[in-house]
Amino acid sequence: RLFQRGEIITDRMIASLASFGYANVKVAEPPTVAILSTGSEIVSIDKKPGRDQIRNSNSVMLKVLCERVGARVKILPQTGDDLNLLKQTISKAVGLGATRSKIQNPKSKILLISGGVSVGKYDLTKPALRELGAEIFFERVRLRPGKPTVFGRLNKTLVFGLPGNPVSSAVTFYLFVRMAILLMQKASDVDLRKASAVLTAPARGAKERDTYYPATLATDRSGRLTATPLGWQGSSDFVGFANADALIVFPRGDVANAGDVRSIVYL
Amino acid sequence: RLFQRGEIITDRMIASLASFGYANVKVAEPPTVAILSTGSEIVSIDKKPGRDQIRNSNSVMLKVLCERVGARVKILPQTGDDLNLLKQTISKAVGLGATRSKIQNPKSKILLISGGVSVGKYDLTKPALRELGAEIFFERVRLRPGKPTVFGRLNKTLVFGLPGNPVSSAVTFYLFVRMAILLMQKASDVDLRKASAVLTAPARGAKERDTYYPATLATDRSGRLTATPLGWQGSSDFVGFANADALIVFPRGDVANAGDVRSIVYL
Repeated sequence: RLFQRGEIITDRMIASLASFGYANVKVAEPPTVAILSTGSEIVSIDKKPGRDQIRNSNSVMLKVLCERVGARVKILPQTGDDLNLLKQTISKAVGLGATRSKIQNPKSKILLISGGVSVGKYDLTKPALRELGAEIFFERVRLRPGKPTVFGRLNKTLVFGLPGNPVSSAVTFYLFVRMAILLMQKASDVDLRKASAVLTAPARGAKERDTYYPATLATDRSGRLTATPLGWQGSSDFVGFANADALIVFPRGDVANAGDVRSIVYL
Repeated sequence: RLFQRGEIITDRMIASLASFGYANVKVAEPPTVAILSTGSEIVSIDKKPGRDQIRNSNSVMLKVLCERVGARVKILPQTGDDLNLLKQTISKAVGLGATRSKIQNPKSKILLISGGVSVGKYDLTKPALRELGAEIFFERVRLRPGKPTVFGRLNKTLVFGLPGNPVSSAVTFYLFVRMAILLMQKASDVDLRKASAVLTAPARGAKERDTYYPATLATDRSGRLTATPLGWQGSSDFVGFANADALIVFPRGDVANAGDVRSIVYL
């Protein structure tokens, strides 16, 4: 047996497969993912944002991240802060049939809703999901970043509500959504690859939440894998995040010094 | 300045680009690569190999590896051990015009010829290139694997002759062809990413050739990056190579023990 059912085919497996005559290989069907950005502060990428507005960067970022793990992605039209429009868009994506009462097959197996997951007046993601009768599995996690992450099911579609800021959105994608997309393809190893690394600078976890801190990796002359925490104060430094190779895992309350060893997960 | 000209756009750069309004980004034109497998011992992947035959696994392996670094790939029909057919096929790929004397624009910017690069009676790659008037830059390298690698130019096409066995073919792709494909896209960083790792087992370089030894990577509890040489005796264990994360670099004559630190390049 060359490879096991559930393995993800990599570049370097191709020669083996071909050598043993696998001109065609049966693979999992790509799950369909719909991505919806909420909030009237979001303008499309080709528009100039006004005061207090930002471009809809999460949609394309999440699209690429989903595609990397095998999904087919559709970006839905933005819904601003309009609860009814949001409910209609969600209904359509999950096949509820907003105008007809008939339940259809979901258009997408996973719906990612970006933003609107906090508890402010204009955070409409949870109200919309509740009013549509979604089953909510969790609506808050003890993580930094990612605290307001929502996970539920509506009709037959898994729904994730992800925090609106880009780094939080990316991190929660890696910690939750990625696994769901892989599991739908019956992948056997759905965890991010783990390792241990030596910190090059002091860093600390949040007091009451496990922290996944973006970092770049290198090695020193003695072959130690070093992790350098990125200048990520809060959760908006997505320019720095572009250089991230891994997330350092700090248990809640953890205070680490330079030279300490911590678990990391590769991005 | 967010990113520099020549940077390779990664998943995690997408959010930054989009946030700053780059709905479209100017990227390099994908270089075209033609792949040609020589030798009558090569049968197509969907055929059952006879005695002393192997399937044409290198073509699809090289195709995927080229595509990963941005190339557009065409697999050419096999030429067996027929020198004239080989010359015709090469001529057409590089736009020499086998039947007409007129020189055309090359169909492909790079031609990869798999196999036929040694010095046996049926090793026709070099004779074919010479008879067509190719400029040969080198036709042997002090590397293991990869000794018989050929590099030249014919018309305006760069031509690589790669060893026929799959591990050697993959390693020489990573060491030579990958860089050429990236340079044609004006990428600024065309080197494989380097690091240092601790060997988990003794291993040695060839006496007179630098050795690039496939290995898997892990980390131990103290955060040291460990490299485990794969059971690669000679150059045919492509099933083991499917698990390779990196190549360990042994200078010629190097004898290393478990626990020694060596340079690696990530695959």
